[in-house]
Amino acid sequence: MTGNILGERFVLVSFGESHGKAVGAVVDGCPAGLPLTEEDIQRELDLRRPGTSPVATPRAEADKVEILSGVFNGYTEGSPICLMTRNTDADSRPYEKIRSLPRPGHADYVAGIKYGGFNDYRGGGRFSARRTTAYVMGGAIAKKLLLKTLGTRIVAYTVEIGGVKAEPVAFEEAEAHRYDNDVRCPDQEAAESMRRKIMDTKGHGDSVGGIVECVAQGVPLGLGEPCFSALDSDLARAMLSLPAAKGVDFGSGFEGSRLLGSENNDPLTVNKEGRVVPTSNNAGGILGGLSSGMPIVLRVAFKPVSSIAKPQRTVNLETMREEELIVPGRHDPCVVPRVIPIVESLMATVLADHALRAQMIPPVLRG
Amino acid sequence: MTGNILGERFVLVSFGESHGKAVGAVVDGCPAGLPLTEEDIQRELDLRRPGTSPVATPRAEADKVEILSGVFNGYTEGSPICLMTRNTDADSRPYEKIRSLPRPGHADYVAGIKYGGFNDYRGGGRFSARRTTAYVMGGAIAKKLLLKTLGTRIVAYTVEIGGVKAEPVAFEEAEAHRYDNDVRCPDQEAAESMRRKIMDTKGHGDSVGGIVECVAQGVPLGLGEPCFSALDSDLARAMLSLPAAKGVDFGSGFEGSRLLGSENNDPLTVNKEGRVVPTSNNAGGILGGLSSGMPIVLRVAFKPVSSIAKPQRTVNLETMREEELIVPGRHDPCVVPRVIPIVESLMATVLADHALRAQMIPPVLRG
Amino acid sequence: MTGNILGERFVLVSFGESHGKAVGAVVDGCPAGLPLTEEDIQRELDLRRPGTSPVATPRAEADKVEILSGVFNGYTEGSPICLMTRNTDADSRPYEKIRSLPRPGHADYVAGIKYGGFNDYRGGGRFSARRTTAYVMGGAIAKKLLLKTLGTRIVAYTVEIGGVKAEPVAFEEAEAHRYDNDVRCPDQEAAESMRRKIMDTKGHGDSVGGIVECVAQGVPLGLGEPCFSALDSDLARAMLSLPAAKGVDFGSGFEGSRLLGSENNDPLTVNKEGRVVPTSNNAGGILGGLSSGMPIVLRVAFKPVSSIAKPQRTVNLETMREEELIVPGRHDPCVVPRVIPIVESLMATVLADHALRAQMIPPVLRG
Amino acid sequence: MTGNILGERFVLVSFGESHGKAVGAVVDGCPAGLPLTEEDIQRELDLRRPGTSPVATPRAEADKVEILSGVFNGYTEGSPICLMTRNTDADSRPYEKIRSLPRPGHADYVAGIKYGGFNDYRGGGRFSARRTTAYVMGGAIAKKLLLKTLGTRIVAYTVEIGGVKAEPVAFEEAEAHRYDNDVRCPDQEAAESMRRKIMDTKGHGDSVGGIVECVAQGVPLGLGEPCFSALDSDLARAMLSLPAAKGVDFGSGFEGSRLLGSENNDPLTVNKEGRVVPTSNNAGGILGGLSSGMPIVLRVAFKPVSSIAKPQRTVNLETMREEELIVPGRHDPCVVPRVIPIVESLMATVLADHALRAQMIPPVLRG
Repeated sequence: MTGNILGERFVLVSFGESHGKAVGAVVDGCPAGLPLTEEDIQRELDLRRPGTSPVATPRAEADKVEILSGVFNGYTEGSPICLMTRNTDADSRPYEKIRSLPRPGHADYVAGIKYGGFNDYRGGGRFSARRTTAYVMGGAIAKKLLLKTLGTRIVAYTVEIGGVKAEPVAFEEAEAHRYDNDVRCPDQEAAESMRRKIMDTKGHGDSVGGIVECVAQGVPLGLGEPCFSALDSDLARAMLSLPAAKGVDFGSGFEGSRLLGSENNDPLTVNKEGRVVPTSNNAGGILGGLSSGMPIVLRVAFKPVSSIAKPQRTVNLETMREEELIVPGRHDPCVVPRVIPIVESLMATVLADHALRAQMIPPVLRG
Repeated sequence: MTGNILGERFVLVSFGESHGKAVGAVVDGCPAGLPLTEEDIQRELDLRRPGTSPVATPRAEADKVEILSGVFNGYTEGSPICLMTRNTDADSRPYEKIRSLPRPGHADYVAGIKYGGFNDYRGGGRFSARRTTAYVMGGAIAKKLLLKTLGTRIVAYTVEIGGVKAEPVAFEEAEAHRYDNDVRCPDQEAAESMRRKIMDTKGHGDSVGGIVECVAQGVPLGLGEPCFSALDSDLARAMLSLPAAKGVDFGSGFEGSRLLGSENNDPLTVNKEGRVVPTSNNAGGILGGLSSGMPIVLRVAFKPVSSIAKPQRTVNLETMREEELIVPGRHDPCVVPRVIPIVESLMATVLADHALRAQMIPPVLRG
Repeated sequence: MTGNILGERFVLVSFGESHGKAVGAVVDGCPAGLPLTEEDIQRELDLRRPGTSPVATPRAEADKVEILSGVFNGYTEGSPICLMTRNTDADSRPYEKIRSLPRPGHADYVAGIKYGGFNDYRGGGRFSARRTTAYVMGGAIAKKLLLKTLGTRIVAYTVEIGGVKAEPVAFEEAEAHRYDNDVRCPDQEAAESMRRKIMDTKGHGDSVGGIVECVAQGVPLGLGEPCFSALDSDLARAMLSLPAAKGVDFGSGFEGSRLLGSENNDPLTVNKEGRVVPTSNNAGGILGGLSSGMPIVLRVAFKPVSSIAKPQRTVNLETMREEELIVPGRHDPCVVPRVIPIVESLMATVLADHALRAQMIPPVLRG
Repeated sequence: MTGNILGERFVLVSFGESHGKAVGAVVDGCPAGLPLTEEDIQRELDLRRPGTSPVATPRAEADKVEILSGVFNGYTEGSPICLMTRNTDADSRPYEKIRSLPRPGHADYVAGIKYGGFNDYRGGGRFSARRTTAYVMGGAIAKKLLLKTLGTRIVAYTVEIGGVKAEPVAFEEAEAHRYDNDVRCPDQEAAESMRRKIMDTKGHGDSVGGIVECVAQGVPLGLGEPCFSALDSDLARAMLSLPAAKGVDFGSGFEGSRLLGSENNDPLTVNKEGRVVPTSNNAGGILGGLSSGMPIVLRVAFKPVSSIAKPQRTVNLETMREEELIVPGRHDPCVVPRVIPIVESLMATVLADHALRAQMIPPVLRG
């Protein structure tokens, strides 16, 4: 299979460039009988939309979704669902100037070589974060499907920006309050420090990175197909399809590698309903590549945004001489806040795929 | 596709249980014309083999590989290569006792539910690290293929065990000396501390985790198929198929998320050969999901081994009462040293797959 | 992978229902650097378009293609190409009446059960031949790619309709004259008999079937991946995705099963260019699942159109009583003439996929 | 995916060459809890085995299967099942002589070019019908799975050999008596004529082809994933992976293309159980790419065996001159009788895959 297709039974196909006509997705394999409207998609898209906060790019795309197929009388049909959003506010002028000046930290140079210079360089083209619109559109369907069939709830939020760390909060707290501030961190105090950090860095023409945590609650035990489609394998694969993601870990993760076995193992007990459950969740809800029934917990590390206003050293591809570049265009000073709904979408897409593989979601939803 | 199959053009199929008849692999898609002998495979397998060091399990498998198909007159034929190793030293007795006592940190309970109790529980069955024998067998072919066609060299080594961190070393140093000590860390001083840490922890019936770094040098620019088969996506997927892996990051990774954009971006320059290259490698050799021509650098976090000699709380599935368990059987006190050749194998397998996808390795090797 | 996706390296995703908003395709894996305009697609679409001949349905769709992504400055970019055609002339009224009266020979009843009644029944919905618009759009790209890189020419034509058989004609003759008549048969005399047969049958409110032959010339030796992606395997798979197709054979095919080995084997000789070639082509250009360098020759059998004006026995799903049905709506009396460009498209799509797999088409077309 | 892998949820991986060490299969995705022994596999393999009839090759392989993984305590585990048969009676001597004399009708020349001469040429290597041993081994599991879970019964039999046609027989008759004669045709009278035809042709150093019909009864309504994994698409793909297969049709098939719509449509009625069913089965149990609940009926055309004792014209690849060749080695004069269990196996493999995709077989068989 080629690279723009994700999943086996709930399949997401992504298409579109940043400054082309449209970006979109085809979802194949969604069960028939799921109530679905353009509003369901729009709501999620609006959370990703740029131009809505001082910590984000001022590019003001309407991001109006249109469902082209696969939905009939308000329900999914069991056929491929094509979702499309036309690009309207692309400003391609700044990019003409930098055509021969690859931006450090971006794929410009590498992509130009790989695609023989035929790729749309404007705004990064296919490498722009704009393609994540498709992830959100597909993920909106997956989210609704999971909630309706399994009661799965998925919540992502900022846990660190520019080195400022948030305190842990309960799932319900995060679910209710992650959108209460611009940086989308449910620890409101840390959020304020993060916001200042972003604005301060932006003021210096620089950018910051951070870490997003995503938790899925109500995931049935047994999702995942070891060894190579282990649930963590497929989640990590999806998360690293995010333009600025540079790392993923699960449960105690990198920190857990410093613990003793006796500290990191989650002891088993019997809960009130008489079910065998762990008393802690260092495993992050995944054991041996299978969901354990506990909440899935993962973190994604995002690098600081590569497009900065500070002068950087690059090479002029026409003269083959070094040159200073101040990246033009409109950019986020920190990708983390906008990435929240996208991380949720990818989590949902992978879980929906695995729930279908494990036959925990039926091919037709009845009543 | 099902979960025991990895790759698109260089495909690895893994089979076998820890205490079954055999473990093995089928490699489909390997180009014709690669010189290949059982010794090529055996050499790598021997590096993974248990029973060779005080820091590893005393289980003494011969791990003798047999090539069943796909090789003719000393060369690969272009047909599927089946590689098999018979299990000989499996000791299943200890596992009978714990059949109804799932081991904390292991997949025992979850797998038992998912597979309706039909899965071989002895030694973890399919969830045992023994299945990684297949990864090494397949990876040995990928490694040889990459070296012969692209000159790619792949080196993994321990960078942290039980919180003891190694100093960075040059690629050639790591390549030459990673096997000079039991913990497979090229910083010989740190290695000694790590070894002591393991032996000490083992003495207390406990276990430690750690971090492995893997570097691939000589990877051509342009491997990877964004967005969902980005090179980092597929590498992360493969690494998380390792039984105890809980996290992966690339280049500056999690640490890089705390840097400024101006610090983390790799400026571009022109090297002596007149090629555009970055002056640093915070990207870990991957930009926009494509290899940049710089060394690929990733780290994998491994949790402390779950099988420990200390008593742990679990549930007796027959009585549904809590019980104390001291895990029987023979185990590594730390998985990190043995995982080194396996991490290299997975890196090689993914790179070979992507080099074939990008047509940088031909379907027939001539002369 | 799910069912609406075809191919491995040149991938066709099909979406859309007959009476929905749009039908379309996403092509992923097309090399960068192929000159491509909407006119290239439109030309092929126009050959498939209904409403242009007395032997076809009067439904008059404009079938105007729009390229939404993947093409920049007149060349493919190496990213997914989304192609869309909006439905404009769908007349859904007749279908309301027959909602509970499944049409014999159609998938109505079966699809209704499989998709729990959520599928769009109007005009057959996803089961309508209208989805083949996507095949033609994707195939137009594949055709151009093959011609430009390998010089492959693909020609399909009618060889039998309603039992009326055409005489064999040379490839060039078929290529030049298959569109000279309404039934798209290069034997002009037989074409006239076929046309009369169709009109006559239509006059009786009935329909006819027929056989299409498709020949690909200039296919390099060695395409195909035995055993399960043998070239004939993948071609047959694609052809049977055509709504009314009920059989496929290659070379001497079903007739060849009645010959002796000494008659059916193609003897080898050396041609003027010093190349080893067969003196006949009973193999239809495929040996052991691999292209032999000779023209690929296949035939597809199409059943008579199921929608007929004659009364037929069906079951009223509300009363569960038998009822007579005269199928309403606008239909072709014979599918064969309109299917010609579609068969060519599928041949092209499969060949392009295999040429990429065999690295006979590069990932970037330069100059 | 590469070519030696079939299916999505019930996956068959085939490996092995005719004169190599072994041939075998890996089945991934088989549900846990299916009772399975080597005898289950052996029974089917024995039906395929050569050396058992005057109408077949005298090569006398024991074809003794060994299950290497995936079965525990007599039940499938839900993990990959590796099945292997060692080659014992391969006689490679005759093939040395003809190394430079490609056999007409065989893949020798084409494969030699494609694989750069690295492929094992002995006995056709990977192109030998010996690889179908893997199909039978995998199919034996699929057959048992289908029978146990859905009650599906699959029966193939000879309907034509060398132009001699059998009369139609009822399913039960075919099931009970297809193995009553050497040619495996349930019409005992026609069988005798076929047998004479084979022996007579063999006497002249020639070979014959024929047609096999395969019927699957008890297939639930709704299997198949249009458009490109339509049930007929996937069945045709599988059947054409058979070395000598040159065509496939379904239901009335090629003959049906000569009928009128009013003749070929299957009218619907209500049966005694109150279910909507067709009164005939010209559709061969497949409508719109979906199983209709009626028996699946397909036919596969096999060419006459290419290896004949009569002198044939070929080219000596060393001298590049034409030469006469009398094919050495041991061969079947007609492939049709031996192919019967193989056709059944492929039908079973595809149906099991689609039954799992449609969630009509659960991932674990309980009780």
